[in-house]
Amino acid sequence: MRFFSDNAASVHPKVWEALKAADAPDAAYDGDALSARLDEAFSALFGVECAALWVATGTAANSLALAALCPPHGGVLCHREAHIEVDEGGAPGFYTHGAKLMLVDGEGAKVTPEALAAAIDPIRPDVHQVQPHALSLTQATEYGRVYAPGEIASLADFAQERGLSLHVDGARFANAVAHLGCAPFEACRGAAALSFGCVKNGGMSAEALVLFDPALADLIKYRRKRAGHLQSKGRFAAAQVLALIERGLWLANARAANAAAQEIAAACGERLLHPVEANEIFVSLAPEEASALRGQSFDFYDWPAPPGHAGAARLVTSWNSDPGDVGKLAAAIRGL
Amino acid sequence: MRFFSDNAASVHPKVWEALKAADAPDAAYDGDALSARLDEAFSALFGVECAALWVATGTAANSLALAALCPPHGGVLCHREAHIEVDEGGAPGFYTHGAKLMLVDGEGAKVTPEALAAAIDPIRPDVHQVQPHALSLTQATEYGRVYAPGEIASLADFAQERGLSLHVDGARFANAVAHLGCAPFEACRGAAALSFGCVKNGGMSAEALVLFDPALADLIKYRRKRAGHLQSKGRFAAAQVLALIERGLWLANARAANAAAQEIAAACGERLLHPVEANEIFVSLAPEEASALRGQSFDFYDWPAPPGHAGAARLVTSWNSDPGDVGKLAAAIRGL
Amino acid sequence: MRFFSDNAASVHPKVWEALKAADAPDAAYDGDALSARLDEAFSALFGVECAALWVATGTAANSLALAALCPPHGGVLCHREAHIEVDEGGAPGFYTHGAKLMLVDGEGAKVTPEALAAAIDPIRPDVHQVQPHALSLTQATEYGRVYAPGEIASLADFAQERGLSLHVDGARFANAVAHLGCAPFEACRGAAALSFGCVKNGGMSAEALVLFDPALADLIKYRRKRAGHLQSKGRFAAAQVLALIERGLWLANARAANAAAQEIAAACGERLLHPVEANEIFVSLAPEEASALRGQSFDFYDWPAPPGHAGAARLVTSWNSDPGDVGKLAAAIRGL
Amino acid sequence: MRFFSDNAASVHPKVWEALKAADAPDAAYDGDALSARLDEAFSALFGVECAALWVATGTAANSLALAALCPPHGGVLCHREAHIEVDEGGAPGFYTHGAKLMLVDGEGAKVTPEALAAAIDPIRPDVHQVQPHALSLTQATEYGRVYAPGEIASLADFAQERGLSLHVDGARFANAVAHLGCAPFEACRGAAALSFGCVKNGGMSAEALVLFDPALADLIKYRRKRAGHLQSKGRFAAAQVLALIERGLWLANARAANAAAQEIAAACGERLLHPVEANEIFVSLAPEEASALRGQSFDFYDWPAPPGHAGAARLVTSWNSDPGDVGKLAAAIRGL
Repeated sequence: MRFFSDNAASVHPKVWEALKAADAPDAAYDGDALSARLDEAFSALFGVECAALWVATGTAANSLALAALCPPHGGVLCHREAHIEVDEGGAPGFYTHGAKLMLVDGEGAKVTPEALAAAIDPIRPDVHQVQPHALSLTQATEYGRVYAPGEIASLADFAQERGLSLHVDGARFANAVAHLGCAPFEACRGAAALSFGCVKNGGMSAEALVLFDPALADLIKYRRKRAGHLQSKGRFAAAQVLALIERGLWLANARAANAAAQEIAAACGERLLHPVEANEIFVSLAPEEASALRGQSFDFYDWPAPPGHAGAARLVTSWNSDPGDVGKLAAAIRGL
Repeated sequence: MRFFSDNAASVHPKVWEALKAADAPDAAYDGDALSARLDEAFSALFGVECAALWVATGTAANSLALAALCPPHGGVLCHREAHIEVDEGGAPGFYTHGAKLMLVDGEGAKVTPEALAAAIDPIRPDVHQVQPHALSLTQATEYGRVYAPGEIASLADFAQERGLSLHVDGARFANAVAHLGCAPFEACRGAAALSFGCVKNGGMSAEALVLFDPALADLIKYRRKRAGHLQSKGRFAAAQVLALIERGLWLANARAANAAAQEIAAACGERLLHPVEANEIFVSLAPEEASALRGQSFDFYDWPAPPGHAGAARLVTSWNSDPGDVGKLAAAIRGL
Repeated sequence: MRFFSDNAASVHPKVWEALKAADAPDAAYDGDALSARLDEAFSALFGVECAALWVATGTAANSLALAALCPPHGGVLCHREAHIEVDEGGAPGFYTHGAKLMLVDGEGAKVTPEALAAAIDPIRPDVHQVQPHALSLTQATEYGRVYAPGEIASLADFAQERGLSLHVDGARFANAVAHLGCAPFEACRGAAALSFGCVKNGGMSAEALVLFDPALADLIKYRRKRAGHLQSKGRFAAAQVLALIERGLWLANARAANAAAQEIAAACGERLLHPVEANEIFVSLAPEEASALRGQSFDFYDWPAPPGHAGAARLVTSWNSDPGDVGKLAAAIRGL
Repeated sequence: MRFFSDNAASVHPKVWEALKAADAPDAAYDGDALSARLDEAFSALFGVECAALWVATGTAANSLALAALCPPHGGVLCHREAHIEVDEGGAPGFYTHGAKLMLVDGEGAKVTPEALAAAIDPIRPDVHQVQPHALSLTQATEYGRVYAPGEIASLADFAQERGLSLHVDGARFANAVAHLGCAPFEACRGAAALSFGCVKNGGMSAEALVLFDPALADLIKYRRKRAGHLQSKGRFAAAQVLALIERGLWLANARAANAAAQEIAAACGERLLHPVEANEIFVSLAPEEASALRGQSFDFYDWPAPPGHAGAARLVTSWNSDPGDVGKLAAAIRGL
């Protein structure tokens, strides 16, 4: 019973269907009929004109976006525990040609205008110091927290005031929208670029990079090719994204994962280290408790224990978490 | 009847089987059981210990290799019409952090030790001039030509004498081996890195980067992640590569494509602009002849006409070129 | 009697005076009173509003300019023998983050609109091929040739039509203007950036980068710092440039060097490999003739012999070439 | 009476003499007789074989060193307030092609093995996280603190244990050695590269980059050229460095600056925010006190006030701080 990561989950049957349906000859690269439908599909989804490109990974989506929004001599504000800082092997430094990530603290990996202001106000506006050019948020965050529309709006306002372009890392954007119950656009309003996660949510090997300024897409198409991310049989990437997007599967999958997380969260009570808003549950768990759960065949990652806790763990649900397994895990936690 | 590009061909049924079989939960990224088999599979294929990594594109494979073999201040020798120079959107410059491609001429996009020596002998060994550090060959070349084992050996000797690391762009390496009928290792002897093409040869979205010095693989794993090419469900990439490699499918597919090309080539006679050794046929074709073929439902790319020719075309066969279509094309060309 | 290079010449007495005069405490970096005068001094010189920055080398000036005019994924057109391609150790690749130099042939290291068009017309406007974004000319060229105002204008027109930003490498711009006898602006009309050489022309360690679009200067100031080229005692760099510019010393020095070159050129007759328009003389010179001259204490560089010549040499005059030495060299050449 | 920065100080008369003496024709770039003496001069100074290169700025020296010690995908440990992080406009990111600065806290801008271990121990040794490859110390630090030989030795041991190459930013290395009274080598033992400051210490426009592994120098020579830092009249840069080094002027100058700082420090008493060990004095100074001092013609920079202080200032002495001015400043501070 695996609660390691949504990365490890299976591919959704409808994605398989779409992949098979894409296996007819068509133009190479992104010249095919499926790739051509992405802009329209995402424009419909967000209710505004936008452009969308498939890429193989969230790291590539994030980095391509940041490189388009921040010059090599600039800086990108993000949370100290943002995935782009912690878990992307330095990819933003590679794609931006050396721009600097400027780290900000905040509860649950969320940033606030106040924290951002505190970080950049002391920067002297001279050439000796790197100047901030962009802001990157993660929605939902690395701790499974979700920015409410009002929070997004105030961060977008802050970004605009300070001349910062806004990027949203939406590896779990679907989970955020499912939690908020709002229009997708409300969950990323003000963003110039959104990395729209698909792989964790039933896809196989395609993510979408959504550009709310279509001119950015024209630029990033060159950068995508230059990064070796323009696949020759791109129709298979487009097919996955469309299968998730065009008939609401992305949201249904995220709702399922979130619901499973809520069931487990309800069993965790005081153990919860963060409110559970998406599909990740961070719990205080002593080493012997972790062993006990593993002894019952539950698999999950240990997590660094916060001060005052003997241990911690991360539990992740996914679109196809088995209801039976989820129930057993909830019961097992209650029984600790 | 499509003779555009092997990029546009379908995915082989055995690759589909392998993909479906891979759809069980396993460790994320390249921690899965399939990815773990790559080193051994390629070591068996080449008869020497080597390491292999999956990546999404040939451009990524080539660029990751070059960046490992050439420092940012160095140069990479290649043919003036090499794919890395002409058709990769500047990816080598991105991955190598600005190294220089040093262009050499040669018939059929092949280079010779003599041409290479003529290119680098005038370079003064001082800091004002970029010094060559690597040599990149394409096997089979961009004009469908194949280096014989003896040619490869003499180029490898040249590279070693001059202190150049050797990379082989093998987007159509299978077609080259099928043509040569030699052991795979003979077709790239001396290479430190080989981009082993799968997508044009029945795959969907995975190529293999083979490193004959396993230490290079350790380095390139960091660079692959940093380039956003470490997919989270890497087992699907590994599955494709293994499906092609482990039971000889790669070679069978290439033989089929080559045979189709030979059938067409035999019909082209004097029209042939290059000997046909792999699965590409470059022919002299006047615009009205091209129109006539297209009128019979044959699709293909026009190619820049060499001096003295009214027009030219590139015809590409693939692992699943329909024998009927191939026969009809051969007949149609004879009938021009 | 040294005719190696104008790089090796002495520093002009007025530059020494200016350096000494700058040795009073002032604000660090480019906050000093002298640096503040550069924009005005160059605006006066060119008769248009422009901005100017000091840098330590022509390589830095060229590369900073190119990085501002061409994105990392773009290309810069230049002559195959341009200094930026041949003798700057790959600096353009470093500063532009991997942009590509696109090489064009032309007599005397001069390019023409026709040659440029021939180079870029075949480039497909798609993401697979690097697209040209800038054009770099050298005025005077690496063979001591000078573009006439009409040639500059037609190249600028071409650049504008094709959407290319224009950079002029003016390591010997003073010699070009001295030859042309025109207003300085006529010698680089249409350029967005001009590397204005000072070191070869009586300076010690400062060149000027002139930006005809002042917004570029604001950008490049960040890039100059980031490249480690913002010297803390910048007043000494500014002093050198101002000493050469503010009272016409730059032009007087160049005229002296050009005149010396003409005296030698007149003695060379049929030996001349290129018309002599600046301060470099390229001559056909058999090895035994070169030895004979060296035996008379003349020092100079050998040059690769063009086809049909037994040998060649480059002779360079400078602002302080000794008239006696020049006369002796002319006589010695006549006497060969 | 200026106590802004040692950057603004005058050039030492012996440096002027050396510059004038260098104004004879010699080989260009670093082929001259003076540049050739650097290796030997620094080997004598440090008592071990080393190589040394002149560069125009400390930023360039630091960045060239870091790029040689850390691969693009790696990280460099340094203090959070290190000059390379705070005041070099992102130059390390440029030169290293995107490597990451990993920030560590510590009193007085000093780092300790314990703080370094705490920073890197949590880094997972996998490709998702940037791995540390180098450690950069500043000697004396940005707060004018000095690492004792024993501290340097323990940091060097730590670096070696962890596989980190050691760089020392010695913009004020002379002041550190003057304070310690030790052999210069003791103040940087274990370093692979030392940026040896000259400009703040009586020079005009040259710093030295000392490589204790001469093979590094061979590499960095290519990188220096590629960065546009190989000046064509390099003899003037070499002359400055040699003038300071060869007869002990560097140490005499630093002693003078340190002594002036001590005189002022003695007057500051409780105001001192950091022990004064080099030539920088950080003092608690209320805004009205700062105004009072300025009213008496003392100029200096305000500094961000630490918690609990109404204001702060940085006072910097230099090799030629006027003893009268220094005495007056000390008296004025006592009189506040």
